[in-house]
Amino acid sequence: MEKHKVIIIGGVACGPKTAARIKRLNADMDVTIIEKGEFLSYAGCGLPYYLSNEVNDYTELMSTPTGVVRDAVFFNKVKDVRVLNKTLAEGVDREKKVVNVRNLDSGETKEISYDSLVLAVGASPFIPPIQGVDLKGVYSLTTVEDARNIRDMQGVLSGKNVVVVGGGLIGLEAAEAFVKQGMNVTIVERLKTVLAALIDPEIAYHVHNELKSKGVNLCLDDSVEKLVGDNEGRVKSVVTEKGEFPVDFVLMAIGSRPNAVLAKNMGLEIGDFGAIKVDACMRTSDPDIFAGGDCVENINIVTGKPAFTPMGSVANKHGRVIADNICGKESQFKGVAGSAICKILDINISRTGLSEQEAKKEGCDYITLLSPSPDKPHFYPDAKLIIVKFVVDKKTRKLLGAQIVGPGDVAQRIQVAVTAVSNGSTVDEIGCLDLAYAPPFASAMDNIIVCANIARNKLDGIARSFSPVEVKEKIMNNEDFIFLDVRGPDEYEMMRIEDPRVKLIPLGKLRESINELEKEKEIICFCKISLRGYEAQRILEAEGFGNVKFMDGGVVCWPYDKFVQSA
Amino acid sequence: MEKHKVIIIGGVACGPKTAARIKRLNADMDVTIIEKGEFLSYAGCGLPYYLSNEVNDYTELMSTPTGVVRDAVFFNKVKDVRVLNKTLAEGVDREKKVVNVRNLDSGETKEISYDSLVLAVGASPFIPPIQGVDLKGVYSLTTVEDARNIRDMQGVLSGKNVVVVGGGLIGLEAAEAFVKQGMNVTIVERLKTVLAALIDPEIAYHVHNELKSKGVNLCLDDSVEKLVGDNEGRVKSVVTEKGEFPVDFVLMAIGSRPNAVLAKNMGLEIGDFGAIKVDACMRTSDPDIFAGGDCVENINIVTGKPAFTPMGSVANKHGRVIADNICGKESQFKGVAGSAICKILDINISRTGLSEQEAKKEGCDYITLLSPSPDKPHFYPDAKLIIVKFVVDKKTRKLLGAQIVGPGDVAQRIQVAVTAVSNGSTVDEIGCLDLAYAPPFASAMDNIIVCANIARNKLDGIARSFSPVEVKEKIMNNEDFIFLDVRGPDEYEMMRIEDPRVKLIPLGKLRESINELEKEKEIICFCKISLRGYEAQRILEAEGFGNVKFMDGGVVCWPYDKFVQSA
Repeated sequence: MEKHKVIIIGGVACGPKTAARIKRLNADMDVTIIEKGEFLSYAGCGLPYYLSNEVNDYTELMSTPTGVVRDAVFFNKVKDVRVLNKTLAEGVDREKKVVNVRNLDSGETKEISYDSLVLAVGASPFIPPIQGVDLKGVYSLTTVEDARNIRDMQGVLSGKNVVVVGGGLIGLEAAEAFVKQGMNVTIVERLKTVLAALIDPEIAYHVHNELKSKGVNLCLDDSVEKLVGDNEGRVKSVVTEKGEFPVDFVLMAIGSRPNAVLAKNMGLEIGDFGAIKVDACMRTSDPDIFAGGDCVENINIVTGKPAFTPMGSVANKHGRVIADNICGKESQFKGVAGSAICKILDINISRTGLSEQEAKKEGCDYITLLSPSPDKPHFYPDAKLIIVKFVVDKKTRKLLGAQIVGPGDVAQRIQVAVTAVSNGSTVDEIGCLDLAYAPPFASAMDNIIVCANIARNKLDGIARSFSPVEVKEKIMNNEDFIFLDVRGPDEYEMMRIEDPRVKLIPLGKLRESINELEKEKEIICFCKISLRGYEAQRILEAEGFGNVKFMDGGVVCWPYDKFVQSA
Repeated sequence: MEKHKVIIIGGVACGPKTAARIKRLNADMDVTIIEKGEFLSYAGCGLPYYLSNEVNDYTELMSTPTGVVRDAVFFNKVKDVRVLNKTLAEGVDREKKVVNVRNLDSGETKEISYDSLVLAVGASPFIPPIQGVDLKGVYSLTTVEDARNIRDMQGVLSGKNVVVVGGGLIGLEAAEAFVKQGMNVTIVERLKTVLAALIDPEIAYHVHNELKSKGVNLCLDDSVEKLVGDNEGRVKSVVTEKGEFPVDFVLMAIGSRPNAVLAKNMGLEIGDFGAIKVDACMRTSDPDIFAGGDCVENINIVTGKPAFTPMGSVANKHGRVIADNICGKESQFKGVAGSAICKILDINISRTGLSEQEAKKEGCDYITLLSPSPDKPHFYPDAKLIIVKFVVDKKTRKLLGAQIVGPGDVAQRIQVAVTAVSNGSTVDEIGCLDLAYAPPFASAMDNIIVCANIARNKLDGIARSFSPVEVKEKIMNNEDFIFLDVRGPDEYEMMRIEDPRVKLIPLGKLRESINELEKEKEIICFCKISLRGYEAQRILEAEGFGNVKFMDGGVVCWPYDKFVQSA
């Protein structure tokens, strides 16, 4: 019997995973990977850490944990998979079931036939049609070659100027690498906040503060108009709507686009985001052709709607499902939660599910909350702050999404939120989770439990609050209210919001000072993190005050100007 | 109208939480806490870190994050809660609904009446009836006073001898503190492994190795027969079944028992573990009396059976539920997953759900697996090993429990397992979780995803394995098999299992060396972590070998003697 022939186009993440799994499930299949680049199976997400010198040798990004480079020989010997690298798949004839390939070194072309075809062709950085983007010294960061080009300049980078165009994940991770090399870094972002597709402004503001505190020049709400070159065709400055920045080089990082041209030419169905449409088995509109990784459209498990979320972790899961289905094993990909995490200098940022902006766009009826707390008991050495935001559906009480920011351990908490969102858990269920507890790792009331409890209090109408963004708006609108700080005088001396509405009454004195407050007036209570702010709301309501709220997250979550005593 | 009077007996964790929540829900209630000790609302789980000097001042353990000590004045001023400390609740008359209390300083007694009563009286260290336990220098570690007594000796501890009796959580955490102070530490544990109630032997062995490598004298399968004192009534040595150890002091840490005498005297129902029986609303057999914290019995959410799991994190959740029910708000405690986590020197250990031992006892039909992997991509600086064990139900494919051990980030993974076990997730669902991914935090295929996939492969009959414990048994039984190491020669040089059954054929050479292996013979493949071991199993099966398995977790998870090249 002739062997079942599988051709996989693309050798970075989904492709090699598919190939390896197929061979484990059915050693009789004949599997070929076609890859246009030289390198296979590399960790694209590791490139920023190669840039920053944290990863010394780029081959580590394409090695097994025991140091074996996953090259064509490796795939052949260990996985029994044929690899054609430096080979371009120029076209596919679906009738004849053949792929037309061209060797990029020799120029030689040939036809290879398949029984099953897998498209794992990835995504490419989006390079906007701006004047000067083709100048020397303008880079993107998608391939090992990109990273090597920049890294080759190492040693002379310190003191040099770079403009990073785009404040998304890759832009920020690259900015970190450049800051670490002592460069002057400017980030130009078209929108008003960084990571705008991922996190809400009230979370992004804390990222802005971190970037600024580390000397990054953050140009928000600004667009690149052109790149200017010198006589030798090398970029020398970046002109934006608001200014001009001299540069030694430029990194373009304004997002990526699925590589769907081949699929489009083949007549396969393409989705709203320009990515290849697949069903839950990762099958395209042609039943013999599968697709996975950064070139396909996913389904968001919260909204049930299509999403484009290129991510190495997702690509690997796609590969498993594709292999299973090619080998006749039932298997489905359940969709994405839109999870992301990153470290930028001394701050960690993560998210899953829906942001508030997304929940609003979806027409959800939701509440939000902000909870800043140490990631361990405050008495344990090295406890660090994290700020958690929850978005919760009002009617079902389900967690729709979470965002976490801060220097502390965000990973431990976001993964719980991912799991809870994926399970459709309510905040009542989350509040009961028996999360593992010991002081070196977490507080007795873990940050996630605290958030679930705040959400329950809000949904039950016990806790009532404004977000800092809402309070700021009220101030900008010149509204009259008492902005009641219930911390101690020492805390007030060290850090405070300076506004004439602020009145200081420590919580322990609130009951005896009740006559200092007017019952008719709107009162917004806060403290350091607004646990006492919430207590104050309850005390005042018990005393007959009718219009009391607290401010989510207290002065710690106030991202705007505030007085902070210098050490 | 007369105020509703709530009396709470116990002021450490559940009690204060109950009091504060009641006042937030209904300021009109009259709430009194009765506490026999001087101190309130302290973090008992922080005591080992006070011992080790990581926490400088014991008052930090009973302070709010802003440094306010939660004493009687604090509770009165801030929470509007009356506190009677140094006061013993001697008895309760359920007919008259009064508590008889005695002030431990003045000896004064009085009756206080209640409408609702809460028992939050905690647990006490179990002190076995051994000769000499009442000698001077014999401590336990439950109260702040205990910790202060030991800490008062600090500065002279280095070089001194201590025997810790009991290898449970508190015993090990205290042992860490003593090692850090330069003491000679002996642990005497009655069972064959440490943490035997929590983790399986194949996980515990790695803890043993860590303790031994840090100089701890580990006496397993041994019992204390008596403590011997000097002329001044001070302990000078510990005599066990197997030896005698001179000591400067002794720490008894063989577990705790619920404080249920008062409840028993009151005629309340007591459960199998000697703890107070409560319903899901935390109500005792008397509808006006609630109980929570370390003195009550919980329900294990996996087995549905009673469990005694004293834990500060659980006590806080109890408090919330009790307060809600006293205030007429519907609220239930869903039970415990038996989660635990601890750090012992340079190793972290955590668990949730059922261990293999427990699953066996419950009569479950299960599979297990071991997966050792770095906690981040191997190329990222500071990636550290963690070993994950899953116990999975064969029929339902649900995760029954997880155990994780290693120097790396176990917390991030155990909390996902806690959430998954709580949701009754199958390994198929867990394998699809869109866990947040970036190299500083996790690998593209997170450890938990890898484990879920291994479990699916095993359940589907694709992957077949023995645990290291099973292989060791086969060796001890002199069974004949090929113990096939498929790593490279370099790896073999650095670390190897030394047994005549071992045969080295690197995976990349396996196909061409197939004739070196006898088809009839049993073959057990392994590599460093047994990913290649699994590949080898699949390759050999495809070549017609009928009796092939791999060994779970490879040489990394082999906890027995092995050759390791010194650096």
